[in-house]
Amino acid sequence: MISKFFRNNVRLIRRHIHTATGSNRTSSLVRFIGASFVGGSILVGYNWLKQNEVHMASGSVNKLASVTRYMAEPITDRKALDANQSDMKCRMEELVMKIQHNFCRSLEAEEHFGKKFLVDRWERAEGGGGITCVLQDGDVFEKAGVNISVVHGNLPKGAIQQMRSRGKQLAEGDLPFFAVGVSAVIHPRNPMIPTIHFNYRYFEVTDSTGEKQWWFGGGTDLTPYYLNEEDAKHFHRTLKEACDPFDRTYYPKFKEWCDKYFFIPHRNESRGVGGIFFDDLDGPDAEKAFDFVSSCAHSVIPSYLPLVQRHKNDAYGTRQRDWQLLRRGRYVEFNLIYDRGTKFGLYTPGARYESILMSLPLQAKWEYMNIPPQGTEEAAVVEVLRKPKNWLDL
Amino acid sequence: MISKFFRNNVRLIRRHIHTATGSNRTSSLVRFIGASFVGGSILVGYNWLKQNEVHMASGSVNKLASVTRYMAEPITDRKALDANQSDMKCRMEELVMKIQHNFCRSLEAEEHFGKKFLVDRWERAEGGGGITCVLQDGDVFEKAGVNISVVHGNLPKGAIQQMRSRGKQLAEGDLPFFAVGVSAVIHPRNPMIPTIHFNYRYFEVTDSTGEKQWWFGGGTDLTPYYLNEEDAKHFHRTLKEACDPFDRTYYPKFKEWCDKYFFIPHRNESRGVGGIFFDDLDGPDAEKAFDFVSSCAHSVIPSYLPLVQRHKNDAYGTRQRDWQLLRRGRYVEFNLIYDRGTKFGLYTPGARYESILMSLPLQAKWEYMNIPPQGTEEAAVVEVLRKPKNWLDL
Repeated sequence: MISKFFRNNVRLIRRHIHTATGSNRTSSLVRFIGASFVGGSILVGYNWLKQNEVHMASGSVNKLASVTRYMAEPITDRKALDANQSDMKCRMEELVMKIQHNFCRSLEAEEHFGKKFLVDRWERAEGGGGITCVLQDGDVFEKAGVNISVVHGNLPKGAIQQMRSRGKQLAEGDLPFFAVGVSAVIHPRNPMIPTIHFNYRYFEVTDSTGEKQWWFGGGTDLTPYYLNEEDAKHFHRTLKEACDPFDRTYYPKFKEWCDKYFFIPHRNESRGVGGIFFDDLDGPDAEKAFDFVSSCAHSVIPSYLPLVQRHKNDAYGTRQRDWQLLRRGRYVEFNLIYDRGTKFGLYTPGARYESILMSLPLQAKWEYMNIPPQGTEEAAVVEVLRKPKNWLDL
Repeated sequence: MISKFFRNNVRLIRRHIHTATGSNRTSSLVRFIGASFVGGSILVGYNWLKQNEVHMASGSVNKLASVTRYMAEPITDRKALDANQSDMKCRMEELVMKIQHNFCRSLEAEEHFGKKFLVDRWERAEGGGGITCVLQDGDVFEKAGVNISVVHGNLPKGAIQQMRSRGKQLAEGDLPFFAVGVSAVIHPRNPMIPTIHFNYRYFEVTDSTGEKQWWFGGGTDLTPYYLNEEDAKHFHRTLKEACDPFDRTYYPKFKEWCDKYFFIPHRNESRGVGGIFFDDLDGPDAEKAFDFVSSCAHSVIPSYLPLVQRHKNDAYGTRQRDWQLLRRGRYVEFNLIYDRGTKFGLYTPGARYESILMSLPLQAKWEYMNIPPQGTEEAAVVEVLRKPKNWLDL
């Protein structure tokens, strides 16, 4: 039974900023959510973030740790990270921590009333853990989830099968793995702002002979509710600029891969207007692959924030809101039926489903046979989702 | 690609009753939804149901057909149905048509302002078709879908695999199949009324030597938002009374099967308070199996309608509505990630996804880490979903 995997203990440390003005306040409040989470989780502490320092409130141990650049303490011990600065695992962990921090702070800056991300740092009994940042019910962002995870252990059978099916040569027997990644889905409240998703990850698998395979994967893609050609072009142009210095074939190749991947077969339509998507990237060498992934991850903010700023105060009514909720229903369909990441997550022993499912919108709608009449702005979106477009006229 | 299977033509005949008072009016209005549905569907006609007669409005042909007992014309030609009254396929089609009609009319009678089911009769290019009845945005039922389908053709590979994995002995090569079933999900507006789902089906598969296998499957289950012990007991008691005359072991066995099937592993909780579920029923003989299925299908109304009547005018507020929407999110998770019927449907060539996905609620919600505080009525529901209960103290 899969269910037994979800009954293990998960240590959870929550950091929270409650501030309506943007200034930070300190409190010694320690709240226990209790043992009902995941059928027996343990909440270690609930802290307030004071400026850039974390005041550990668990028991009598007081520890001050600088989290200037991060949303919480890294999963891997800081000393280990510092001591292994040339190890790709550590470099990637530093990268995803930084990307998470920068992105969360950029989004927070767009909120009109100072809403901040809730920060949950969790540990996985089987090895590793993660930091889940969620901003829910903001005035600009209805639900924004930015998650990093650093996990290791033995590859679950399902994952081995999936990797083999896409051509990976993996030995028999136990396969120790290490995976580090950042993943985010942002659902804004204003239907004129698109939803963005991105995910960048690094994988290592070692077989019994000690041979190590490694690869990177990732992508950024956009799901608008209403079509704005300028937005789509700006988004794709920014991604292309992140790719081009490394390989001029990357953007066109990964753009096509994205269109193919984020596709809802039963509706014969794409989830959105695409972006880039790639997997199993193990060349030209680890150094260059890392630099490329880093470039893509750093392009998320310049690709998306201008769209948020441009549209966050746009006027809209119930018609636009209803259409947004219907399209969010499609988003849920893709994520729950087809998305490999969600499936991999939910079937991984010790998976933290709250972090995996934070990608789902706060609200979604399903109407029977909702077909927007021809000539409407809603029909125009559907048309583009049926025929993926070459946004940059390449 | 799966997608190509969804681009075939689907003939669709829609019948509709628009009446705010419960009395029926006639109109010759013919509306065309256009070719955007399923990437190229053809809408044949749009008719008003006049009393118990259907006035065919497509072109110059006027045909009167009695649909006294049915929501629309059967999928199999009436003459063929009448001529083969001892054929199980025909008997089952008659049964599901009758069940659909009775259930839809019973639900309509609960609406305060005369809201009626929309009736879509569709044909499948690969063989057969169905009748989809949907009542959306009623004052008592937020979304109610009652679907029958009568399909035949060759078994898709995925279905063969699935059937073999549960122990069916199926020959190699093409496997002509015939499947007839009724399936319904009712999402009421008032959070004090539970959601009900039921599905009863008959399957025939013939191999190249002409050997025929047949079996029945089905079940009825309840998903309350708030726990009402009396409701759950009444529901289970009614199902037990439908089972007991056939085999006293059926109810306990099928109750357990239901608890196992409608389970959400990643959350370690059941979808609802259960009911009965069974599959591959091919004994003691076809006659008795049919009578048993018929008894179960006829028990749906007495098991559920009293709950609707009891609670449809109950008071509730935003707290109860919010909780209902969150639980509907769980319903979506089960249906899209785990439900075999939904998967089988979406992967079947020529599948009509609008009929399959009509089971999804009009609205659903996902909040990060929503854990109801201990001692609340919401926590009481979760507790029961974690530990399936023996409602009848057997």
